[in-house]
Amino acid sequence: MLTVWPLAGIGEVTAGADLVELIAAAVEASGHPLSDGDILVVTSKIVSKAEGRFVRADDREDAITAETVRVVATRTSESGHVTRIVENRLGIVSAAAGVDASNTPEGTILLLPVDPDASARELADGLRRRLGAEVGVLVSDTLGRAWRDGQVDQAIGAAGVRVFDDLRGTTDAQGRPLHVTLPCVADELCAAADLVKRKATGMPVAVVRGRADLVGGLDLPGARTIPRTGERDMFRLGYDEAYAEGYTAGSAASMPSEESTA
Amino acid sequence: MLTVWPLAGIGEVTAGADLVELIAAAVEASGHPLSDGDILVVTSKIVSKAEGRFVRADDREDAITAETVRVVATRTSESGHVTRIVENRLGIVSAAAGVDASNTPEGTILLLPVDPDASARELADGLRRRLGAEVGVLVSDTLGRAWRDGQVDQAIGAAGVRVFDDLRGTTDAQGRPLHVTLPCVADELCAAADLVKRKATGMPVAVVRGRADLVGGLDLPGARTIPRTGERDMFRLGYDEAYAEGYTAGSAASMPSEESTA
Repeated sequence: MLTVWPLAGIGEVTAGADLVELIAAAVEASGHPLSDGDILVVTSKIVSKAEGRFVRADDREDAITAETVRVVATRTSESGHVTRIVENRLGIVSAAAGVDASNTPEGTILLLPVDPDASARELADGLRRRLGAEVGVLVSDTLGRAWRDGQVDQAIGAAGVRVFDDLRGTTDAQGRPLHVTLPCVADELCAAADLVKRKATGMPVAVVRGRADLVGGLDLPGARTIPRTGERDMFRLGYDEAYAEGYTAGSAASMPSEESTA
Repeated sequence: MLTVWPLAGIGEVTAGADLVELIAAAVEASGHPLSDGDILVVTSKIVSKAEGRFVRADDREDAITAETVRVVATRTSESGHVTRIVENRLGIVSAAAGVDASNTPEGTILLLPVDPDASARELADGLRRRLGAEVGVLVSDTLGRAWRDGQVDQAIGAAGVRVFDDLRGTTDAQGRPLHVTLPCVADELCAAADLVKRKATGMPVAVVRGRADLVGGLDLPGARTIPRTGERDMFRLGYDEAYAEGYTAGSAASMPSEESTA
């Protein structure tokens, strides 16, 4: 049995806020104390806010550029608005580098946390001490996907939780090896949490109880191990962008050289 | 509060099995009657089995070819094994067209259900009558993703459940429009269910309680509305494949024509 519930009463988070204290107080007020093995899923937005990652809204395009390691694809809408899908410094591929303008103070936008795994570790460490329970922490973001419409919440930071449930080496019900199965449980936990947090209700933290087997030491690998980047990423450019690279190379290779036309 | 629990005791499903009866019996044996608004997440594997979608394992490569509408990308491993990422007739992009060899009888492999939305409708209709509760049904599959390692369970069939929680037109906590947010709740529900079903434990159905707001008539749009295909899909080919198309076109365009060389 898995149970997932949101924490009410966290309220607006401002730069410099003590998230450990805010979350611990919300847990205490909820009347549901946490136990060893509970997993807290924290919306990246409040982590960014506490870390003061605000930028003036006017600087949005520059902020996206600054957060971008590599442009993956761009799309221009009928109205002329250009959406950039980019890889950010965390290896995460998303629209607008995760720069977010919803649920932020008027005139501001919000960048992703500098190091969401480090943020998660700090939260997990603080909450374990403060609440006396060995909890795991995931930092979630709402991300689009290739090939499928809509968004799902996924993990961009993790501490004290295994992000993959490594079934490689285990067997199926017939005793045969499940060799390629590597469920990204961190993403599944964030998805489950989103079903109770929802977007507009001001409940940026949810608790997931029932997968204590995934919770462990704060030295477990973080969510930084989830993105597939570089040569391993078969979709490292959009169709148009990869086609254009090929076209340029094909043109150059077939162009009569100076020598041959001379 | 969301609760998710697996149904035990469904056992091995064979071709022609009455899934409505098997699932209803498992619900009754569980001691947890279902209520209006509960959502059953059914692993596509047992739907395929009940529908007799078995193929001889020797015919695996041919079966993948038959299920493929379009090859998206191929990758050859160091051992020489070729993985094909393809779009199948349902618009779903996945490795090996969803052809599955785990948890199947020796010597057989399994194709996806012919029409998972229709399968879900039949299940939802039967279970609503049999159990006297307005339940929703999702059919899930374990799918890989672009840009991220590991797999998550996602929805390939749906009946009586809204697959998107359409927040467009609603507002954030500051009253500003959440215009691009379209959570794919069907995928999030399947992810949540996978956290209790797991892969090797023989529990192919889970119940999700707590999002009755998503449950409605059997005429709601199915999971067929989730895949983004054709021109709207910016990642309709892998990098290598799109580059090759561009290269060929670039070469042809720059090749001295018959006339100019004459």
